[in-house]
Amino acid sequence: MANINDHYLKLAAGYLFPEIGRRVSAFADAHPDAELIRLGIGDVTEPLAPAIVAALHRATDEMASAEGFRGYGPENGYDFLVDAIREHDYRARGVELAADEIFVSDGSKQDSGNIQEIFGLDCSICVTDPVYPVYVDTNVMAGRTGEADDDGRYAGLIYLAATEENGFAPSPPSQGADLAYLCSPNNPTGAVMNREVLGAWVDWARENDAVLIFDAAYDAFIQDPALPRSIYEIEGARRCAIEMRSFSKRAGFTGVRCAYTTIPRELVGKASDGSEVSIRDLWSRRHSTKFNSVPYLVQRAAEAAFSAEGKKQTEEQVRYYMENARLMREGLGAAGFTVFGGVHAPYIWMRTPEGLDSWDFFDRLLSDSHIVGTPGAGFGPAGEGYLRLSAFNSRENVEEAVTRIRKAFA
Amino acid sequence: MANINDHYLKLAAGYLFPEIGRRVSAFADAHPDAELIRLGIGDVTEPLAPAIVAALHRATDEMASAEGFRGYGPENGYDFLVDAIREHDYRARGVELAADEIFVSDGSKQDSGNIQEIFGLDCSICVTDPVYPVYVDTNVMAGRTGEADDDGRYAGLIYLAATEENGFAPSPPSQGADLAYLCSPNNPTGAVMNREVLGAWVDWARENDAVLIFDAAYDAFIQDPALPRSIYEIEGARRCAIEMRSFSKRAGFTGVRCAYTTIPRELVGKASDGSEVSIRDLWSRRHSTKFNSVPYLVQRAAEAAFSAEGKKQTEEQVRYYMENARLMREGLGAAGFTVFGGVHAPYIWMRTPEGLDSWDFFDRLLSDSHIVGTPGAGFGPAGEGYLRLSAFNSRENVEEAVTRIRKAFA
Repeated sequence: MANINDHYLKLAAGYLFPEIGRRVSAFADAHPDAELIRLGIGDVTEPLAPAIVAALHRATDEMASAEGFRGYGPENGYDFLVDAIREHDYRARGVELAADEIFVSDGSKQDSGNIQEIFGLDCSICVTDPVYPVYVDTNVMAGRTGEADDDGRYAGLIYLAATEENGFAPSPPSQGADLAYLCSPNNPTGAVMNREVLGAWVDWARENDAVLIFDAAYDAFIQDPALPRSIYEIEGARRCAIEMRSFSKRAGFTGVRCAYTTIPRELVGKASDGSEVSIRDLWSRRHSTKFNSVPYLVQRAAEAAFSAEGKKQTEEQVRYYMENARLMREGLGAAGFTVFGGVHAPYIWMRTPEGLDSWDFFDRLLSDSHIVGTPGAGFGPAGEGYLRLSAFNSRENVEEAVTRIRKAFA
Repeated sequence: MANINDHYLKLAAGYLFPEIGRRVSAFADAHPDAELIRLGIGDVTEPLAPAIVAALHRATDEMASAEGFRGYGPENGYDFLVDAIREHDYRARGVELAADEIFVSDGSKQDSGNIQEIFGLDCSICVTDPVYPVYVDTNVMAGRTGEADDDGRYAGLIYLAATEENGFAPSPPSQGADLAYLCSPNNPTGAVMNREVLGAWVDWARENDAVLIFDAAYDAFIQDPALPRSIYEIEGARRCAIEMRSFSKRAGFTGVRCAYTTIPRELVGKASDGSEVSIRDLWSRRHSTKFNSVPYLVQRAAEAAFSAEGKKQTEEQVRYYMENARLMREGLGAAGFTVFGGVHAPYIWMRTPEGLDSWDFFDRLLSDSHIVGTPGAGFGPAGEGYLRLSAFNSRENVEEAVTRIRKAFA
């Protein structure tokens, strides 16, 4: 019998969201009349913007003609999309990147899960706690950790607690590490790293020869133009940071699938013979060997999100979700709940009431209020005592959810 | 500096197709007037079938409405597509599979590259030579091999030469192995495995507790209904085989991206403590952690390929390409070339003339005839002395290509 990858057996029973899905399905099956409001998984609900819809129709028609048909695309993405990214996401923020430093992909989940493959198995890994589970799970699967302890923390990882005291934006550790995963605006806490905190991380990375893996999937939700949207707005980041950004939340692409990863040429790692190797080149090799480009029509749809109309329409959607976030933050706050996030991110991070642990609060919310949240403990032990609510839903559902929670926990 | 994954440094300079792309670009830049005919990379050229185009438009309109919008899809694919696969690709061939044994993905390249991750790093690997480079390269990157020798064969892999003598369908090795990659109809040789050969592989796998990774991306090109299209048509295969199939070639999806991997529940591997572990469950964990489903509209497009109209239209496209293959096979054969394949596969595997090695013949074809092929040696040392021509092109181009080759090598 072929030996399996034993590291998989170290993983907790299931990836967080499928586990939530199972509990919700079981509840819905038992209570078919319950009107569930789903604020758990951070999944957009607004329909695709008209400019994006038009681009999909146009691209479909192209694919229907002999002249317009496109087969395999360039591994790193079509120039029309890469150039739009360079212009709108970077140049507009004063950052210059070459076309071959940007890799279009089908999702930041994939990119943040796959990026570890190009690094040595002996690399030390630093993550925050709570944390987006993919960063941790993919390193467990690759064998960079020992077993999990009773709290669910894996031996060998460096965990930095994101707490109320540090504003859920932990500073770099006193020790060094090879790779550090950062997410800002943060999933799940909704916190955002300002220029100073991000600068401290870049300095730490430079001093310790570390690589920062900066997940900016929620950058479009930053409301204050003075806050950095890209890590490359920080001096020195080109030499130490990989950045991931996504169309999922800012353009409603969770069911359309497009994202990208940026790796500047200056970023190098070390081979076992001591020589320096371009991280960009390694990722390029992985990308061309284990990936086969994003559908043409999806790339045209992503391009349309940068058009004048597309920008206006998708920014309107972001405002809609952020107004939801405000209503939840203020409504729950006024009802006596302690809430965080929701200012520069579409997530509310709320303290559980009555000393409930976070899975119990999850179950109570589901059974009493028919609301699906995400238990904070699902993101790591420091998430215990919190619950994440997503602002991605209709205004009506968000208002109803706040009313139900206030009523159930009055 | 973070340590890199040193195994990447064992890889040859570039993945084969980007290398071809670079040579072709250089030639085209130097000869802007040359009318290149691209028979290199196996990329479809016919526009999307009307039934598929209609499905894309419909799904786009759904995504434009509040009621029809779909965000994150089920990790393993929507039921409508999984059920269509079960019905048309399996039940129609007498094979019964459960919905949760099928995993919809964005490509067989990805699946065949990623599948090794769920197996132990100590697994021994058996491949044919020549071989689709992804099987080998991804195992090199994972660290299951030593360095390449002068022929490009990596230490530690078991290579089985596919030769004229064995009809390019090698029998199982005398020794055992943990994983064996098979591809039928074969890329690059165009050979197909009949029931007897495939049965011998299944028997070998059962006797040696091996797992077969069966890549059937070209199954739609099989002309003889008696030949197996799925490995599960062979008795015992459910206990030893993983199967990969794709919409890329049969429905013109190289720029649309949809495929699937099938893993029956009976297939188990061994953990280091000796216990049996479901390979399906491991893949499910990987798929839900490192992947995020195929775009909704793409899944609707794939479903449409199974509709009565879609089937008729895509089968017509397959016939068109196979007529191209016949013209190439017969035209080049009549001109004195020794050619293989092209009967149950869209690839012609031709002996290079005049004792040229395969990269030299590639360069000669490019410079003298302005035709792009794929050098056989790019698929492994046993491919030396051969060149692959793809039948994916217009009739006009295929006829012109045959004429040019006959003329240049008369």
